Amino acid sequence: MKIITLTTDFGTSEYTGAVKGVIQSINPEARIVDITHNIQPYNIMQAAYVLYSTLKYFPKGSIHVAVVDPGVGTERKALILETEDYYLVGPDNGIFSLFEYNHAWEIEFKEASPTFHGRDVFAPAAARLSLDMNPEELGREVKNIEKIDIFRIETEARKIKGEVLHIDVFGNIITNIKKEIFSRLGIKTGDRLRIKTLNKSFEVKFLSAYGYAEKGELILLVGSSGLIELSENLGRASEVLNISPGDILEIEAQ
Amino acid sequence: MKIITLTTDFGTSEYTGAVKGVIQSINPEARIVDITHNIQPYNIMQAAYVLYSTLKYFPKGSIHVAVVDPGVGTERKALILETEDYYLVGPDNGIFSLFEYNHAWEIEFKEASPTFHGRDVFAPAAARLSLDMNPEELGREVKNIEKIDIFRIETEARKIKGEVLHIDVFGNIITNIKKEIFSRLGIKTGDRLRIKTLNKSFEVKFLSAYGYAEKGELILLVGSSGLIELSENLGRASEVLNISPGDILEIEAQ
Amino acid sequence: MKIITLTTDFGTSEYTGAVKGVIQSINPEARIVDITHNIQPYNIMQAAYVLYSTLKYFPKGSIHVAVVDPGVGTERKALILETEDYYLVGPDNGIFSLFEYNHAWEIEFKEASPTFHGRDVFAPAAARLSLDMNPEELGREVKNIEKIDIFRIETEARKIKGEVLHIDVFGNIITNIKKEIFSRLGIKTGDRLRIKTLNKSFEVKFLSAYGYAEKGELILLVGSSGLIELSENLGRASEVLNISPGDILEIEAQ
Repeated sequence: MKIITLTTDFGTSEYTGAVKGVIQSINPEARIVDITHNIQPYNIMQAAYVLYSTLKYFPKGSIHVAVVDPGVGTERKALILETEDYYLVGPDNGIFSLFEYNHAWEIEFKEASPTFHGRDVFAPAAARLSLDMNPEELGREVKNIEKIDIFRIETEARKIKGEVLHIDVFGNIITNIKKEIFSRLGIKTGDRLRIKTLNKSFEVKFLSAYGYAEKGELILLVGSSGLIELSENLGRASEVLNISPGDILEIEAQ
Repeated sequence: MKIITLTTDFGTSEYTGAVKGVIQSINPEARIVDITHNIQPYNIMQAAYVLYSTLKYFPKGSIHVAVVDPGVGTERKALILETEDYYLVGPDNGIFSLFEYNHAWEIEFKEASPTFHGRDVFAPAAARLSLDMNPEELGREVKNIEKIDIFRIETEARKIKGEVLHIDVFGNIITNIKKEIFSRLGIKTGDRLRIKTLNKSFEVKFLSAYGYAEKGELILLVGSSGLIELSENLGRASEVLNISPGDILEIEAQ
Repeated sequence: MKIITLTTDFGTSEYTGAVKGVIQSINPEARIVDITHNIQPYNIMQAAYVLYSTLKYFPKGSIHVAVVDPGVGTERKALILETEDYYLVGPDNGIFSLFEYNHAWEIEFKEASPTFHGRDVFAPAAARLSLDMNPEELGREVKNIEKIDIFRIETEARKIKGEVLHIDVFGNIITNIKKEIFSRLGIKTGDRLRIKTLNKSFEVKFLSAYGYAEKGELILLVGSSGLIELSENLGRASEVLNISPGDILEIEAQ
């Protein structure tokens, strides 16, 4: 039984239902697993991050469909990528930037609603892959795909300038700064660090778990996907600080 | 393995969990697929539209449960309908208006919480159908069911007056005007049309995909279920225009 | 095929996706059923109520994972409980207060992100239980677990003082008052009762179903899990009355 995962910006709307219907009609045995449908509408960078932090937990051979697709119906390609462990299926708009792939194909299709390739192009392709159809039968190989640079940061001495990648469901602010940067700069648990956002500057402690902070205390920690995260214990840091994906954050060791 | 789909106004609440538990207890092999639980509370017309635009993508033999049920616990009937391809299970309040059916049964039940027939009446009936139980064993046949007229519009010369059926997750405004009406009136891609809402009047282009419009541009297009849709590229038309399901919309060709 | 259910405060976020990936990687045959991911962040009491009102509908042998875990990464234990019918897996913070159990084990683990035991501790434990691994192999038995008292109320003559346990998706206000209390005090369908909240006092009828009230009428009824519920027909009582979980409610028979 093959697993097909779904990551979209469809919310919990009926569009997800239609995608599932198409998949189950082509392969009634496919097991569909929702990763999330709560990507910010049209936010490709956030989707790229979520795929990066989540897909690795799925069994080898899974087929991952990602549909955040503001260019649906225009000339952007519809892709199948083959990585070491998975197939990835979705639009060619940078959403798969964080994956190495061995081969890429442009999906060929005849009829499709120009507003809903999730249902009419990506779901059928994924369902056919789950029936062990060869990607060669679904499209023609292409060499280059769109890429976005997500982990670009600036560092100097003990200062790091990074970007907010994602606000999670608890209001945690997930940056694009990998934990290795902190190790390299010698920052350790218990250290105090100065944070600068667009219009605020404040000090926080670098701790190892939310529960070690006071209620309402802002802290830095290593998030569950190995990226530095700015959090408020038992609160919503993103609201307190009024920060959104795309904002710049500066961290300075004392 | 039989598919049972769920369409409700339960949100992502625990009520959905209870319904699934009941189904799996009666038939552990049933595969449950969520269509959506985000129907506006009590909005039967929206539910009718969502079923109409989504169920056809599921394999033949699927069992579709729909629970938007403001009259739960009163005298309204609990129904099983048999269509050409499916069983439909839900309250007799117009929710299945857009389906032709061959037979209808009123579900008979003994004990049920008067506030939760989804769990106590509809889920068990669907689970039993998925075990190939005959509807005759679950209730007695009835002749007439409640109907709502959803696609009623007015046209004159090159003017169409329709109604807003649904705001989708992207803020697209889905009307009850079928694309065939546009063809019949000779409206073509690229044409400019005048729209009147309760307190606004403006011109938009009729395009074939969101991506062909400027960022923030209002456009008309044929939505993925074949109905005319008023959209804002990369934005939320419903918020910009302050439009809700039930509102009247007038479209005039130039 | 074993069922593993999930109840969390992860919303519809990617965290749920990662948990599912881990389970399916360990046991591809496990069937995962979402109960709800919409517990108020960190609200252990609400989670306890939702588990109590929902788990009983699942087949015997199901494995129930509950992750509402403000203390993640601190010294609170990670638990497996064995009840008559189920395994329960989650943090030792009172979330399982409403279940009798025969045995309890503290899950032992080596590596785990201190911010995400749902993925790194609870999901693997549940998946292994679903492969019929013995809890003895996953941890060491413990005697006592954390308990919260949820159904504590005060009664005198024909007056009851209870607490709001949960606001459901329709805005219904679910109290911690069991229907048996009403029977014992001789309160019957049709009776008028006086309700006092922090800053309001008003009369409502005790009815058997929402649909027997006028549109917008506030009523008391027995909710679907046998607790007294304060509701507005076709409206949201919690918003009209500005009531939240934890608020005190006084009910007086006339």
